Amino acid sequence: MGAVNVAVVGATGAVGRELLGILEERSFPVKSLKLLASPRSAGTKILFNGVEVTVEAVSAAHFKGVDLAFFTAGGEASKEWVPVAVAAGCTVIDNSSAFRMDPKVPLIVPEVNMEAVKGHEGIIANPNCSTIIMCVALKPIYDNAGIRRVVVSTYQAVSGAGNAAMEELQAQAEAYVRGEAIEAQVLPVKGLPKHYPILFNVIPQVDVPVQQGYTKEEWKTIHETQKIFADSSMRITATTVRVPVMRSHCESINVETNRKLTAEECRRLFAAAPGIKLVDDLDAQIYPMPLDTSGQDLVWVGRIREDTSLENGLNLWVAGDQLRKGAALNAIQIGEYLIAD
Amino acid sequence: MGAVNVAVVGATGAVGRELLGILEERSFPVKSLKLLASPRSAGTKILFNGVEVTVEAVSAAHFKGVDLAFFTAGGEASKEWVPVAVAAGCTVIDNSSAFRMDPKVPLIVPEVNMEAVKGHEGIIANPNCSTIIMCVALKPIYDNAGIRRVVVSTYQAVSGAGNAAMEELQAQAEAYVRGEAIEAQVLPVKGLPKHYPILFNVIPQVDVPVQQGYTKEEWKTIHETQKIFADSSMRITATTVRVPVMRSHCESINVETNRKLTAEECRRLFAAAPGIKLVDDLDAQIYPMPLDTSGQDLVWVGRIREDTSLENGLNLWVAGDQLRKGAALNAIQIGEYLIAD
Repeated sequence: MGAVNVAVVGATGAVGRELLGILEERSFPVKSLKLLASPRSAGTKILFNGVEVTVEAVSAAHFKGVDLAFFTAGGEASKEWVPVAVAAGCTVIDNSSAFRMDPKVPLIVPEVNMEAVKGHEGIIANPNCSTIIMCVALKPIYDNAGIRRVVVSTYQAVSGAGNAAMEELQAQAEAYVRGEAIEAQVLPVKGLPKHYPILFNVIPQVDVPVQQGYTKEEWKTIHETQKIFADSSMRITATTVRVPVMRSHCESINVETNRKLTAEECRRLFAAAPGIKLVDDLDAQIYPMPLDTSGQDLVWVGRIREDTSLENGLNLWVAGDQLRKGAALNAIQIGEYLIAD
Repeated sequence: MGAVNVAVVGATGAVGRELLGILEERSFPVKSLKLLASPRSAGTKILFNGVEVTVEAVSAAHFKGVDLAFFTAGGEASKEWVPVAVAAGCTVIDNSSAFRMDPKVPLIVPEVNMEAVKGHEGIIANPNCSTIIMCVALKPIYDNAGIRRVVVSTYQAVSGAGNAAMEELQAQAEAYVRGEAIEAQVLPVKGLPKHYPILFNVIPQVDVPVQQGYTKEEWKTIHETQKIFADSSMRITATTVRVPVMRSHCESINVETNRKLTAEECRRLFAAAPGIKLVDDLDAQIYPMPLDTSGQDLVWVGRIREDTSLENGLNLWVAGDQLRKGAALNAIQIGEYLIAD
């Protein structure tokens, strides 16, 4: 692959830092690197491949000569700066929700629909974290037996709400052990009026309310999945929930298929599927857990059971690192494909 | 109500202690109280209504003259001692799973099937904790619209695995903050070979494996619910999961009804239903959370949404105190009914 000029917008955030680490790990062919962020974070110094790079405040001038820009600074920043970057000739891989449902923007999970990236017009969207993890797990089932309906309940790590949420869980644990008052200022949603402790708690709200009583996270799970599979007939319902876990999401997924798939057939499919690690032996107490998947690239799938309440149904338990496959790694896989292509 | 001679078997366990507290709170008409436990716990002194009672090792002689015995010492103790207590003339309310599926033993959630207690032959079974909480929430929907199918994913507190699991979570938090190694010796299941940390983790195993890849907890959720509703046509599938929460269970419940029920109709049903607190205003960030339901008697229901993937579907989010409504309170409500009857 020819080396490219890369920019990372949102370089100091949780996903931005993970992204830089993965670019290093995978020897992504970086000719030059610009680290951009809000003016508040400008001046921060970050080591990349042993070289200190200074974070600069994002501006139009910085996108000149950049081939590939990873955006991970949130929806508002993407709305403002992605068009600027594209106008400057960058190809943008955007981790925010700003352009995901735009019909002209491919929404890509490499294991599912990499070919949909062809014909992009400068912007490629990286899906929502819990959606990516679910789609990787659904793909082998979809291809083999078809999917009529999905009922998913999530167990989402605090990393999905950024560095501040991870620091908050840490601080709450420290306060609890010291017998001090537990303070909450970030979760469930930074900008909303109420905040609740996450330590020893479970919060059934991820992101803001949208409509019909659903949160934006639940809405994304439904509509992004249909777009990724290019199948609006796939019926999906979701309940998204925050749990006191640092950085791996889990999902309890119930799938109704078009044709019968036994648990054993399903295990064979997962064992051979890209992006998946089959971790499924209940008798030996082996199943995916977020402590084990943190820092891992693959989506772990286990607790595979035939659903005895349906003719053609399966239950799965899935876990994946929110910062890696749920965000940074998925974006970099897209970038690698673009360069190789 | 006439006062009765009461025994509590398993008095020193998490549920046993909660049970004693609730007997006091509700001024349960206790004429005399025997506290029984394993020989290991004998000699422990517990205050009840201001009087110190010494825990005695369980033996046949102790059941003589006892009217009502609450058993909460686990399945093995119940199998051994419940028949002895019944032979001595006690009516037993058994919190273990030992007799729940026995066709001669009523399995009771007072808000659902209190009348099924009539004609009992000395043993009344208290259902599994997560099952009780789910059944209370399903009842108004069942009565009003019928239930075809339920898909439930649980978020279960460590209290369901007893005092030792609560102490383990506490110790893991302390070790984490002190930078020490996290030790696990209890969860997911005390008697099994492997143990995993629960702090900052999620463990998709509650209780031992049974069959077809399901755990005993999942199996109970299905079969106990069908028995409580006396409706084996109700199709249920379950994934039961342990989360780092001290003592309240949460459940994400997807319900397919026989006839359409709007979210607003559903809210009205819950607002009027016994044993339920409607806590449902997403726009105001109001929903059930385990930190809030701990120590509470009611089952809290919120996040009520019409399931857009089904013609007649609903999503609910439910939380209830595992030690109270999930165990001790439910047993005492049964006892109160027996005495009043």
